[in-house]
Amino acid sequence: PTLFGQLNAGIESTTDKGTTVNSYASRVGVKGSEDLGNGLKAVYHLEWQIDVAGGKGATASEDLGARNAVVGVAGGFGTVLLGRHDTPLKMSQAKDLFNDGVADMGKSNITGGLGMLGKGGEVRAANVIAYVSPSFAGISLVAAGVSPEGVTGEDVKLTDAYSVALMYGSQKEGLYLSAAYNNYGSDMMNALGATATPAVTGLDDATEMRISAQYAAGGLIANVTYQDFQDTGTFNDADELVATEGSNIQAQVGYKMGKLMPKLKYSTTDFDAAGADDGSAYAIGLDYALGKKTKGYIEYMNSDSDMNGSGDDITSTVVGLLHKF
Amino acid sequence: PTLFGQLNAGIESTTDKGTTVNSYASRVGVKGSEDLGNGLKAVYHLEWQIDVAGGKGATASEDLGARNAVVGVAGGFGTVLLGRHDTPLKMSQAKDLFNDGVADMGKSNITGGLGMLGKGGEVRAANVIAYVSPSFAGISLVAAGVSPEGVTGEDVKLTDAYSVALMYGSQKEGLYLSAAYNNYGSDMMNALGATATPAVTGLDDATEMRISAQYAAGGLIANVTYQDFQDTGTFNDADELVATEGSNIQAQVGYKMGKLMPKLKYSTTDFDAAGADDGSAYAIGLDYALGKKTKGYIEYMNSDSDMNGSGDDITSTVVGLLHKF
Amino acid sequence: PTLFGQLNAGIESTTDKGTTVNSYASRVGVKGSEDLGNGLKAVYHLEWQIDVAGGKGATASEDLGARNAVVGVAGGFGTVLLGRHDTPLKMSQAKDLFNDGVADMGKSNITGGLGMLGKGGEVRAANVIAYVSPSFAGISLVAAGVSPEGVTGEDVKLTDAYSVALMYGSQKEGLYLSAAYNNYGSDMMNALGATATPAVTGLDDATEMRISAQYAAGGLIANVTYQDFQDTGTFNDADELVATEGSNIQAQVGYKMGKLMPKLKYSTTDFDAAGADDGSAYAIGLDYALGKKTKGYIEYMNSDSDMNGSGDDITSTVVGLLHKF
Repeated sequence: PTLFGQLNAGIESTTDKGTTVNSYASRVGVKGSEDLGNGLKAVYHLEWQIDVAGGKGATASEDLGARNAVVGVAGGFGTVLLGRHDTPLKMSQAKDLFNDGVADMGKSNITGGLGMLGKGGEVRAANVIAYVSPSFAGISLVAAGVSPEGVTGEDVKLTDAYSVALMYGSQKEGLYLSAAYNNYGSDMMNALGATATPAVTGLDDATEMRISAQYAAGGLIANVTYQDFQDTGTFNDADELVATEGSNIQAQVGYKMGKLMPKLKYSTTDFDAAGADDGSAYAIGLDYALGKKTKGYIEYMNSDSDMNGSGDDITSTVVGLLHKF
Repeated sequence: PTLFGQLNAGIESTTDKGTTVNSYASRVGVKGSEDLGNGLKAVYHLEWQIDVAGGKGATASEDLGARNAVVGVAGGFGTVLLGRHDTPLKMSQAKDLFNDGVADMGKSNITGGLGMLGKGGEVRAANVIAYVSPSFAGISLVAAGVSPEGVTGEDVKLTDAYSVALMYGSQKEGLYLSAAYNNYGSDMMNALGATATPAVTGLDDATEMRISAQYAAGGLIANVTYQDFQDTGTFNDADELVATEGSNIQAQVGYKMGKLMPKLKYSTTDFDAAGADDGSAYAIGLDYALGKKTKGYIEYMNSDSDMNGSGDDITSTVVGLLHKF
Repeated sequence: PTLFGQLNAGIESTTDKGTTVNSYASRVGVKGSEDLGNGLKAVYHLEWQIDVAGGKGATASEDLGARNAVVGVAGGFGTVLLGRHDTPLKMSQAKDLFNDGVADMGKSNITGGLGMLGKGGEVRAANVIAYVSPSFAGISLVAAGVSPEGVTGEDVKLTDAYSVALMYGSQKEGLYLSAAYNNYGSDMMNALGATATPAVTGLDDATEMRISAQYAAGGLIANVTYQDFQDTGTFNDADELVATEGSNIQAQVGYKMGKLMPKLKYSTTDFDAAGADDGSAYAIGLDYALGKKTKGYIEYMNSDSDMNGSGDDITSTVVGLLHKF
């Protein structure tokens, strides 16, 4: 087994919150494989989120956050995985130059709280069976079925939600294109709202769609993502769906020059709600490669009041350090 | 230190629950030892249960389940361990061919909810001091003392509960015989029910007894277990003991042919309650060795309504993958 | 990455509690570094507390306790760390010969519940930026800024609390001197009490001061610590500060003879409260080195009724085993 991880911490100054030290999706994990012969291998990947800045002293517990945790078999037919995993739609993401930070594409300040659970398409699902196809002419297919967690009194199915993505090329170099679709069936939606009594029923299927295009060459990386969200949203205390529908476009560009990489993101959301104004947000940043596995960075994020819905513009500045092991 | 673990996940279809992806006692741990000279060594073993299919996304915590965690000293005199550990009665188990799965011998569908906390004798105890003797003529003794966890206002003792087991032979090859006895004293019972106000008092000692016999040779493995449970049970919301008394017999047989092993289990429980009918359950399965550390399996379990107490027969079918590292 | 840990468990007999098996700040962690060139390196250290004796069976979760977790950069300028860490005042501690056990210098029975959160100065803080200077003429400076965790509706600052320590010499050999000061500003104090409605306001700055002196040579180790606590304390259920002010002196001596080390601690607290009597506590113990990374020990602790505030003298006896890996 290989022990691995990624630590990301920084000093963050955010509107109406002040200045503090934060952890950004720091993680630790164990992974490995066994050669089964005949071109087959068993694979596993376990990962937990850790909050390197959190907790309140020696007696406090530190809950581990759930990240990908799967076991499966890989071979010429592709890979089949069982466990908890990013949806194929999330996996289809073009490279997020502001990944995990204050301008991560899933953050509410950036995408406007669209999508299931307000995550802008960046959903990790429990109770998943996933299939990753081999590559045919540069194209690969990823599909996943998801059943609801913790539901009682009804029959769950592995098709209660499903996610499928088609990807062409490499997310690191050259041209990359992807299209992905998520469907949260009414049974899954009802289940997500089922902690209330009486349970929520009669909800429509929720859908998420994402199209990504990226070009990376000679230090330059540029991409654009179009997303559309229908009947998705978050559940309030009464377990009623607070729908957030609309579409979002994000564009990013970065240019690596030696150890430096300036980077830029722009995001605009067209909310479907009657009378809602379009929201926009942008971020600029500079990465500095301190070593093969370590970088320092500074990021500035600005989210306008229409985007974040708080009634005020929100800005964040982070000076951070990221180390992979 | 050695990092180790075992991942077990499958697609499960169960009566009135539907079809989903589950994790079956998947685990990760760290173990090691230090040679202290003079035939002595320090030993430790830390293990946590993980739910590779559970959690609900990136912000959810994933609680680690408590498994064995001990530190101790081993030498010619045997081994002394301090910490949290399976009771010797659980350790005395003949090989469970359906271990951790839907037909595990501790599951309520299989044993009828007998035993302390309804676990059919499969109890892991906190606050344990355990002793494992060396083998004399193939016989070894394991004994453990257990004090209650989290009790206030009274003096706890390491003899508030105790467990002792005698074992002959190997659990892997040839003849294996064992006899084990658990005693949960009235102080331990009162303590387990002490979260209510007024605390539960006046409970009798609870006892568990298990006798196992197994023969394994040339790919064949067959065993039978007789268990008896008195004054054991679970605590309801008012912290009153809901006693489940009775005796249970389980028989299993498996035959390894190359990479395949068909396996069979039958269980019958004689409940002591007046007017209660005998319950029965059975399971059939097929293991397929994909590699040294990986197997695929299919298991089918049937528990009749008298056994599971739900008013209906319950069946489960699992197609699963187990990988050890 | 290096996997490391320390297991410490023992059989403990304590007044009015009885006899049980306990875990004493057992822990597991991962640490490592990357050489960045130019005399720089990236460093990280992640550590969690584990309760090797706790939990209540296979279905119980075992919360990990928060310990130090930091990532940072070290070079000729010193070390800068971000995350969760012991305060410099705690770091300035002379060697505690009864560390983590029933006579640990932070235990309420030993120090009388003085200090922030009743921890006698042994506070680990979240949301920390810390700086450790290089050594000049044997003197090094450690400073940390801390912002409140989980506060909403107000601007937090990295100076809401701060801790600074000056240290001379080595904590292991020869002369060691240190002086340290903690300041919990009124914003931090209000934040700690802010879970109540209405939030606690108008609290004064709390301060902690610690001066330590130690001499270690030829197997002998002796040290004395003077501490003073003002406006510190714990928060009751109504989130009101229950102040515990006063000063504490602890003296320890140990003498290593081959594998054996007898050790002694005496502590006296002068409570500032009107009419309060001075409390005192002492502990004696014997360590036995079983191996390079393993020791057995016996410790006896006596805390008088004025010190522990329970109305009775409290004594604890522990026979324990400590193993590092």
